[in-house]
Amino acid sequence: MPIFTKNLKIVVVEPLGEINLGSIARLCQNFEVDELRIVSPRCNPKHPDALKMAVQGRSFLENASIYPNLLESIQDCVRVVATCGRIDHGEIPLQTSANALKWLTEDREASSKPIALVFGREDRGLTNLELQMAQKVVTLNASSNYPSLNLSHAVAIILHELNSYCSNSHSSNEIKKYTSASPKELNDCVEDTKELLLQIGFLQSHTANARMAKIKTFLHRSEPRQEDIYILRGILRQIRWFYKNKSFYSTSYKGDN
Amino acid sequence: MPIFTKNLKIVVVEPLGEINLGSIARLCQNFEVDELRIVSPRCNPKHPDALKMAVQGRSFLENASIYPNLLESIQDCVRVVATCGRIDHGEIPLQTSANALKWLTEDREASSKPIALVFGREDRGLTNLELQMAQKVVTLNASSNYPSLNLSHAVAIILHELNSYCSNSHSSNEIKKYTSASPKELNDCVEDTKELLLQIGFLQSHTANARMAKIKTFLHRSEPRQEDIYILRGILRQIRWFYKNKSFYSTSYKGDN
Repeated sequence: MPIFTKNLKIVVVEPLGEINLGSIARLCQNFEVDELRIVSPRCNPKHPDALKMAVQGRSFLENASIYPNLLESIQDCVRVVATCGRIDHGEIPLQTSANALKWLTEDREASSKPIALVFGREDRGLTNLELQMAQKVVTLNASSNYPSLNLSHAVAIILHELNSYCSNSHSSNEIKKYTSASPKELNDCVEDTKELLLQIGFLQSHTANARMAKIKTFLHRSEPRQEDIYILRGILRQIRWFYKNKSFYSTSYKGDN
Repeated sequence: MPIFTKNLKIVVVEPLGEINLGSIARLCQNFEVDELRIVSPRCNPKHPDALKMAVQGRSFLENASIYPNLLESIQDCVRVVATCGRIDHGEIPLQTSANALKWLTEDREASSKPIALVFGREDRGLTNLELQMAQKVVTLNASSNYPSLNLSHAVAIILHELNSYCSNSHSSNEIKKYTSASPKELNDCVEDTKELLLQIGFLQSHTANARMAKIKTFLHRSEPRQEDIYILRGILRQIRWFYKNKSFYSTSYKGDN
């Protein structure tokens, strides 16, 4: 029996097809996922075609939580992996599924906290902004001539692979002593940074998102921990405090205070 | 591009559903399978629902060979792996997919001869007699409470796994188009950061090294590139420039300049 799944959320963004959604619900039951979350569905999760495809996974459709956007749907999740089938994913580094899925489950502390796998739209995947909300982005190996997998096939492949890591290597898990920053903590930190960089003129509003994407990618690569984010937020606060209260060139720096 | 596929036959025994068959045809295109073979179909492979689900894999449905029984469909194949979702498979030993799929492609001699992956009926899989026609039988790991995968999901999982064994060289797919920051560049950036953080009072000199060690560790974990370091140095420069030339709270931030 899968062991990871008591806290695994499958998040599907703006699904278009009832058959796909129903198939995904069946997979949730096949792999004992905790919950199906749907962001702004473009089809009816309780449509007869969906319920038929779900077979024994109907309850995932009936109990699915609906969210207005991706960020809200992963707010409580400590580790988030997104999937990307597109070639034009900009600066966002792609991981092998092995890397990302082992990472998703390796944190014993997180084993009681929600984790999420995010899947994009049938017609155009996830936007770059959405990909940046995940700590890791995976792509699946298929033919370069026709890499576009059916949505539920992507879910099947990822869940089966995740399950095989959990059943193989559970006992050899390293215990991590730190807490990873949640996507929300990271996102808030990035927004705070962006605001400061706009204020001091490092960013201009029309190019801010592109430059911040690079910074965000950089932060993601370091797999930031909560304490890293505390330090970064502390630096931002101190910069603002110093601007307000001191003059940079009038106060000479004293070595030891 | 997959390398095994010029001689891989996907054999589906007595499929029942057009949607499943169409989905399998799409997968054949996704993974550049050589041919789809169908044993005694119980549905119409050219039904509009099948063609719709196939998307770019329609030609696999249009050109599928039809056979009266499994034996005839695999007559020319030198290696055959069958899949089994049932628990009651009698005496037939089950392999892990890793074992069976590596074996399927490891024979260099066979690389020009047909090999086959056989998938059973949606409602009752393959009979024991049929399983015995394959040299190896694999089962997929799913929940013991509901192990029954949708037929096309099983095909997706197997083809993706097979592909990953064949194209391991692909799988380190973060192509390095960037230049890593040198230790000196990173160190200079850290020193510059430290100086600024001392100036604004975020660091105190007697604890500066300990705190900077955390920041350095964080930077190292992200494996910074030259352009990341340029951005960080740019931010430090801009903070200093702004301190010198502007007052933070007197100049209101204007959206687009």
